Order: sequence, then structure tokens, then C-alpha cells
Amino acid sequence: MERIVECVPNYSVGQDLEVVEKIVSCFRGKEGIKLLDYSSDKDHNRSVVTLVGEPEKVKVAVVESVKVAMAHIDLREHKGEHPRMGACDVIPFIPIKNFTLEDAVALSKEVGQALGELGVPVFLYERSASASHRENLAAIRKGQFEGMPEKMKLPEWQSDFGPKAPHESFGVVAVGARMPLVAFNVNLSTADVAIADAIAKKVRHIGGGLRYVKGMGVYLKERNLAQVSMNLTDYTKTSLYRALEMVRIEAKRYGVSVVGTEIIGLVPQKALIDSIEYYMGIENFSPDQILENKLSEEA
Amino acid sequence: MERIVECVPNYSVGQDLEVVEKIVSCFRGKEGIKLLDYSSDKDHNRSVVTLVGEPEKVKVAVVESVKVAMAHIDLREHKGEHPRMGACDVIPFIPIKNFTLEDAVALSKEVGQALGELGVPVFLYERSASASHRENLAAIRKGQFEGMPEKMKLPEWQSDFGPKAPHESFGVVAVGARMPLVAFNVNLSTADVAIADAIAKKVRHIGGGLRYVKGMGVYLKERNLAQVSMNLTDYTKTSLYRALEMVRIEAKRYGVSVVGTEIIGLVPQKALIDSIEYYMGIENFSPDQILENKLSEEA
Repeated sequence: MERIVECVPNYSVGQDLEVVEKIVSCFRGKEGIKLLDYSSDKDHNRSVVTLVGEPEKVKVAVVESVKVAMAHIDLREHKGEHPRMGACDVIPFIPIKNFTLEDAVALSKEVGQALGELGVPVFLYERSASASHRENLAAIRKGQFEGMPEKMKLPEWQSDFGPKAPHESFGVVAVGARMPLVAFNVNLSTADVAIADAIAKKVRHIGGGLRYVKGMGVYLKERNLAQVSMNLTDYTKTSLYRALEMVRIEAKRYGVSVVGTEIIGLVPQKALIDSIEYYMGIENFSPDQILENKLSEEA
Repeated sequence: MERIVECVPNYSVGQDLEVVEKIVSCFRGKEGIKLLDYSSDKDHNRSVVTLVGEPEKVKVAVVESVKVAMAHIDLREHKGEHPRMGACDVIPFIPIKNFTLEDAVALSKEVGQALGELGVPVFLYERSASASHRENLAAIRKGQFEGMPEKMKLPEWQSDFGPKAPHESFGVVAVGARMPLVAFNVNLSTADVAIADAIAKKVRHIGGGLRYVKGMGVYLKERNLAQVSMNLTDYTKTSLYRALEMVRIEAKRYGVSVVGTEIIGLVPQKALIDSIEYYMGIENFSPDQILENKLSEEA
């Protein structure tokens, strides 16, 4: 695949596995699409699908999956712990290869338009948002499915595409583009979660810290230690090593040190290369020098 | 490709590009084989081919290329700056994926046997060597093509496969298995190459240093600095970070510091992961977490 976009659509179904299977089959075994993962949570009554593929193919398949969700999910009867506003709740597009964030924004708008034409109100969010108060998914979703009819009457909560009121059974959907998230945790030599939380507040963006870091303190019961749990929202601008070293700097104030770190889930190779270049002072390194990259190049 | 071996055969031809092309065509566009690189040096009158592929396919193609070399290269007329003993001079096999060093040793012996049956004396070298004095390629090649008839009369220089005297026009060939080499250089805050050389002698195996490090001091004229130039001969046992930190430790004696490093040519991803795990203290990291690895997995 020459150009690759990732998509992680969330559907408001997690108990009826036949419906989940119908949704997933929109992505399975399709040319130009690779289904990486999917998982359903019964308590949340929600499923998350992760796929990558050629942008045009992904667009067609995602729209197809929304039709399936529309046919089989009725939010008027949906109960689950996770907040939700639509049968397909949120569709983020993430640039992976030969595809920029701007390309992902454009793709999200194409998909938004197509879904609007199906009769679903669409809110563009994150980097695709039409106004800054609509960037944050939680802000859009506030009030959930039940609150949408009233909320959408407000001028600042008009939909970007589709009807001006929620679809009766589907609700509304958020579509947008964002960078890949890197979930990066730093374990401390203390069990005091207040210290981890104080450090997180210094390191994260809203606390005057690094631009693309979200974070909070977490207590790990089984290891009896406190952790600074972070999301790096743009690893090309705020690298792993910068987040780690910033945690170290703030930790000194408490006489606490870093005892380990962990990366949760997927991480782009470039995020690791940036940090190894920093720690080892490697000059002029190119990803083409990694043997495995050579092997996976198109022949 | 499920199992992958790398092979870097060297041929004693670098001026007659038609012959080079005939050799390279044994590997180009063949199913189960990927030609990564080839280059010819006129002064050395020598060509180096780098390919990867399925072990059985690589074996067949390499034997084919030796037949081509036998038909078109006559060492009695060969002149070049690089020492050589055969029309195809050396054939190293390097384990890459789902293929161990032991597998590579077995493959080298299969190829050695096949070449012996073609009438070429074969010396097994490196990890395939039949005795420790035959591990080092330079030791086998000493005396070169012209000296082989006499050398092979000695009991310690009998061939492992094939005739007991060199092939008239081809000479002899060395076949063996080794780990991928990682060429790793560390630049110092001094232009004094004697310091770089002294450090290299401490860090390398023969000086009582790290088991899988070869090294020497080099003066970089254009940057006016001295460099510890190393080859890591088994990155799974002696990681990049260990070599770097050992250089740092030895450099302290001279009041010298590390100003940068470089990796020359290809490096296995695992070698980088090992070092990033060390510097960032990452726990429980799996290469499956690297997005690009997920993408290149067989569907």
C-alpha cells in the first residue's frame, strides 16, 4: 500500500456479537484494507475497530459500516457505561504513511459529507473541527444521545454535515483527524499518587508543560507504586524522550526517581528513532537503515 | 516470507559490468528472493551483492551465481587491490527472521557441498568453520589465489568440500554463517587519533573488552576529530548501548567526551530496541507494538 491511513471507529454495540460481526465484516478480507484489531466491551456496550488501508478504500468501507450500524443499532434502547451519542459514535482518521494530517482532515470531511447524505448529523472534531470549542470529543458528546435534540438547537452546536437534528435511532456521529496517540507511562520510586499527579500536572500542556502531552497520576496497586500516565498527542512535535526527561526534572523536587517506563499499545517507529537518536547522539540516521524496513519495502 | 536469510556474496569482477549483470540476474526478479543492493568497485575489481530471501531459494540462486562466475571469471587474469582467492570469493549467510545462526550454519554447509560437487574447493569459515584456526576469513585467504596450490597441501588447510587442490581458473571459495554486523562509530571531543585508538583497544574483545566488539581509532579529516570505529559482531549479545557506554567510561581517562555517534549501513530493528529499552527503562516492550511491524505482517 502506497498511502496508508488508520481508522479507529467506535460503535455503540458490545453485547450483540452478531451485529459486531456484521460491522467487522465491512473491513475483513477487503482489498486495500487491513483489519488490525477489534474488541467489544459488554459493560460499555461498545466495540472499537482498528484498521489501516488505502484512504479511498477505507472511506468506502467505513461508510458501509455506518450503514450497518444504522440498520442494526437503535440508541433509544442502548445502555452502557461508556458515554455515547451515536450508533457509530466516533470515527477518527490517523495519518500513517505518505498521508499527512491535512490529508486525513480532508478525508474526514469527505466521509462526513457522505454520512450527512445518509441522514446522520456529523460533527467534525479534533484537527477537523470547524471551531475551537468543537475540537474536544468530550465537549461534543456532552449530553449524550438523549441530550442532542436540545443541544443541536444552539447555534454553536449545529452539525457540520447532514440534518440539523439527530437521527431518530442513530443519533449523531463525530468524524475527525488526529495524530497517532502514544500512551507512555513513567513509574516512580514512590507509592504516593499525589506526587505522580503533581508531576503530571507540571508536564502536561494545560499545566504550562509540553504542548502535546496529556497526563495524570495513577496508583498501580499490584506494584504499589505511583505512575505518571501520559498520552502524547503528537509524537512528531513532543517526543518520548522529552516527556521522560521532563518527568525526571519535576520528580527531583520530591526526591523521587524514575524506576521504569512503559509504552502501551502501538507506537510509530519514528517515535522510537527520535528518542534513540537523542540518547545515543546518533547523527544522520535514516529509517532506511533499519533492516526490517528494507525488507518490507515494495519489491 | 516466513523464514529469511541474508546472503552477501563477493565476486572477483568489478570492471566487466556485463559479467556483473549476468551474476546479478541470478537474483533479480526471482520469487522468494529480494535483491537489496549490489555495487562494483573498479580498483578492487570486485562486486558485492546483498540479497535476502527464503533459505531454499537463496541456496539455489547462489549456486547458480557461482556457476556464472565459474564460466566468466578467470582468476589467472584477475588483478585488483582487494585480496581474493576465488572467482566467487566469499559467501556469508546471515540469519534474519525465523532462522537461527545454527540454521545458517546448516545452510552454508549445504551450499558448500553443492559447490564442492561443481569442482570448487570450499572452506567453511566464521561460525561454520571446522576448526578455530579457520574461523577468520583473512587467515583462510592468506596467500590468495596464487598461493593456494601450496597452502592446500598443508594438512591444516585441506578443503571442507570439493577437490583437494584449487580449481584452475576459479580458485577456491569461503562459505560460512555469521551474525549481522552492526557498524557503529563514536566520535570524540578530540582530534587525537591515538586516544581513539587507545579507547578502541580497551573496548574490543581482543583487548579484554566486550566479547562481540572489534574496533580501531580513525581520524576524520573533514571534521578534524577522532573516532572509535567499531563492528559489533553479535548485537544480540553485545548491544549498541553497551559499546557506547564502555567507550564513555574509557574516554574519561583522557578527559575526552562523546560528541556523537553514527550507525553505518543497515541495523536490525532489535539492536535499536535493546538500546532504547536501556536508556528509557522501558519494561515489557514487544516489537509487535511498533506500528510499522503490524503493517508489514502477512495478512
